Amino acid sequence: MSDEQRPASWAAVTEGSPFTLANLPLGVADVDGQASALIAVGDQAVVLRSCADAGLLDSVGITYGAYSQDSLNDLLAHGPAAITALRSRIRALLTDESLGLTDIDALRAQATLTLRRTVDIGDYVDFYSSLHHATNLGRLFRPDAEPLLPNWRRLPVSYHGRAGTVVVSGHPIVRPKGLTAAGEQLAYRPTESLDIELELGAVIGVGSELGVPIPAADAASHVAGLVLLNDWSARDIQAFEYQPLGPHLGKSFATTVSPWLVTLDALAPFRTSPPEQDPRPDDYLLGAADWAFDIELDVLLQSHAMRAAGLAAVSVSRTNFADMYWTVAQQLAHLTANGASTRTGDLLGSGTVSGPTRGSEGSLIELTRRGAEPLRLPTGEQRAFLEDGDTVILRGVCRRPDGSVALGFGDCVGTVLPAKEVG
Amino acid sequence: MSDEQRPASWAAVTEGSPFTLANLPLGVADVDGQASALIAVGDQAVVLRSCADAGLLDSVGITYGAYSQDSLNDLLAHGPAAITALRSRIRALLTDESLGLTDIDALRAQATLTLRRTVDIGDYVDFYSSLHHATNLGRLFRPDAEPLLPNWRRLPVSYHGRAGTVVVSGHPIVRPKGLTAAGEQLAYRPTESLDIELELGAVIGVGSELGVPIPAADAASHVAGLVLLNDWSARDIQAFEYQPLGPHLGKSFATTVSPWLVTLDALAPFRTSPPEQDPRPDDYLLGAADWAFDIELDVLLQSHAMRAAGLAAVSVSRTNFADMYWTVAQQLAHLTANGASTRTGDLLGSGTVSGPTRGSEGSLIELTRRGAEPLRLPTGEQRAFLEDGDTVILRGVCRRPDGSVALGFGDCVGTVLPAKEVG
Repeated sequence: MSDEQRPASWAAVTEGSPFTLANLPLGVADVDGQASALIAVGDQAVVLRSCADAGLLDSVGITYGAYSQDSLNDLLAHGPAAITALRSRIRALLTDESLGLTDIDALRAQATLTLRRTVDIGDYVDFYSSLHHATNLGRLFRPDAEPLLPNWRRLPVSYHGRAGTVVVSGHPIVRPKGLTAAGEQLAYRPTESLDIELELGAVIGVGSELGVPIPAADAASHVAGLVLLNDWSARDIQAFEYQPLGPHLGKSFATTVSPWLVTLDALAPFRTSPPEQDPRPDDYLLGAADWAFDIELDVLLQSHAMRAAGLAAVSVSRTNFADMYWTVAQQLAHLTANGASTRTGDLLGSGTVSGPTRGSEGSLIELTRRGAEPLRLPTGEQRAFLEDGDTVILRGVCRRPDGSVALGFGDCVGTVLPAKEVG
Repeated sequence: MSDEQRPASWAAVTEGSPFTLANLPLGVADVDGQASALIAVGDQAVVLRSCADAGLLDSVGITYGAYSQDSLNDLLAHGPAAITALRSRIRALLTDESLGLTDIDALRAQATLTLRRTVDIGDYVDFYSSLHHATNLGRLFRPDAEPLLPNWRRLPVSYHGRAGTVVVSGHPIVRPKGLTAAGEQLAYRPTESLDIELELGAVIGVGSELGVPIPAADAASHVAGLVLLNDWSARDIQAFEYQPLGPHLGKSFATTVSPWLVTLDALAPFRTSPPEQDPRPDDYLLGAADWAFDIELDVLLQSHAMRAAGLAAVSVSRTNFADMYWTVAQQLAHLTANGASTRTGDLLGSGTVSGPTRGSEGSLIELTRRGAEPLRLPTGEQRAFLEDGDTVILRGVCRRPDGSVALGFGDCVGTVLPAKEVG
């Protein structure tokens, strides 16, 4: 990024903060008892409702009401040009004191806010688009067969997840119960193989009509941006239930998303070409070449004992989103290829992001070879799957050529609570 | 039903009408340019907003705004006692002219209204709960193996469908395109095996909290009522895509629901015991004994040529909902057994309703043995799967002991349009 694009702000942005002036991601929280859209900068958040009240956003062209909803849906429905105009205006307000933002009470410390889920989710579709993840799982579950099924390289395989149980970062994750076959004895019991899946989620800003597929080349008109996404999974519940209609209760108990939506325009400098696809996909999946994203991803784990001992979370996986086989544009083209409509707030999970090397897998079942090679924590504890009290943190950053942080997603956090006795 | 429960109305209800005074199902339409909740009686609809405007519903205890939404969600969230009170009040207004309903302009001919989808759907889960359907499909797809997979008798197998493409009766169904392997040559083309699935859908009125399972015995506090549901399916698209994550684009292009919600209290006289379940399900699936429903179901088909020749739709399948192996209460208990929350407007599809005998199957793939035994229409046309111009009508009625219609669901209709050239 050139120096021209890196203006200084009167609002402090510490080096290494994910929320740079190049980022300015969108969020939502209640501020002074009323919902407001927000834009993050450094450790602070700009309260967009207050800016609009003061007339500072009149030039942006977004309706006033969109700034005071308990989700970003109305705002995102204005489309990518409006989002770009809004972020440009906020950048101007943050760099030129004379424009009046310092005259009003429109900044809050992020630490004082309880951030909401950014969007009311319409449909949540979860894909399976990492070649390495699909290959790893195929080897674990079908050791004597080809790891990839015949459809995998032909279309981005996916299923619908439960939109109503998508929660924002920080929401506790209660260990789910379900019918599992541990020790041959089928019973309804707490899962013994609670796992994570490191993903990114694409949020739809502008929906599409029933009967009208979205060409891959038009995806940028519809995708508002990306969030981090943890697709919590109970492997034992999933293993018993999933044939022939796919996963359901092994995943529907919770999905965590990060609270700041990093917009597509902010991510533009980090778009790159995806891996070569062989065989060549059908025409309807072509036409969008640069839809891979160079985003470094990190999974951190902190056990209860580590927390008690004052030990920080440790990284258990490092990978990069650029390596995904199927792109967000292809996922959206496929999802609508049968004429299915989309709505503002629809969420497309990428599928677990796993790299080709040991230590770059995005789930514990892969990292530990289904528990055969457990992780070792600084306390000496071992982890095949998650234990009660474990905290999982997903992080994602885009870096400048010099290695410094250009922008990031912030933390996507969840802590595992014990299964409930009743119910 | 006793004569006491069959009062006469000053509003005409023709013998055989599904919309009796015992039924009084709920719907939604724009009336005089503003959305209103409705109750059907005979060929007419009571405009609830007009009744509320005139003060005729003051005793019911439902907030005024709930009568003027473009969905029933706010109304259904008031809970089953409020729904019962509302229907009782409307029944009184329809039988006692002195109560004032005849003094206001609150009835409309149904034929003049464009009915909306009754609810804004949160999550749509489709089950697979007919033993006969699951057995039939298992035999067709895995002829050399046990037709039922090991989980089928242990839990109500299900998956999430696409909520955003659920349309109300009458909405045209555009033949979807998708990747299919017809003639060995994989290509993106219009489906050649467009099918129906005859189902009922349970609509959630009162939702539940994340982390708190709904006991089967409490299902009546949450289920507002039932609608007919046609889970349109493209078998060739589904066959190529569905492993390992289940069906998606083979079904996500459209699901049709009937426009009148038949409430749970109206259905009370037709509740019965489901078939015996062997093996005994886990405790969390027990506690709700009478959750089968004696509802006679009919699938009718009319081709374009039949319509042109003035020939009425013919019945191609007759079955009964009482024969379903897993009940709505068990579906809801299972769906939430891992702590998943539910929301007002969530939709639970029963899965295809197929009976044990020839001619009682709820899908064409079963009725025609995957096309090997095509249906013959009055025009001499044959049908393995649906052709462009075909109209499918689902009907459901509950009968009195004397065989007369006690109540019914009305028609759930869709006509197949050709695939679109563009896209």
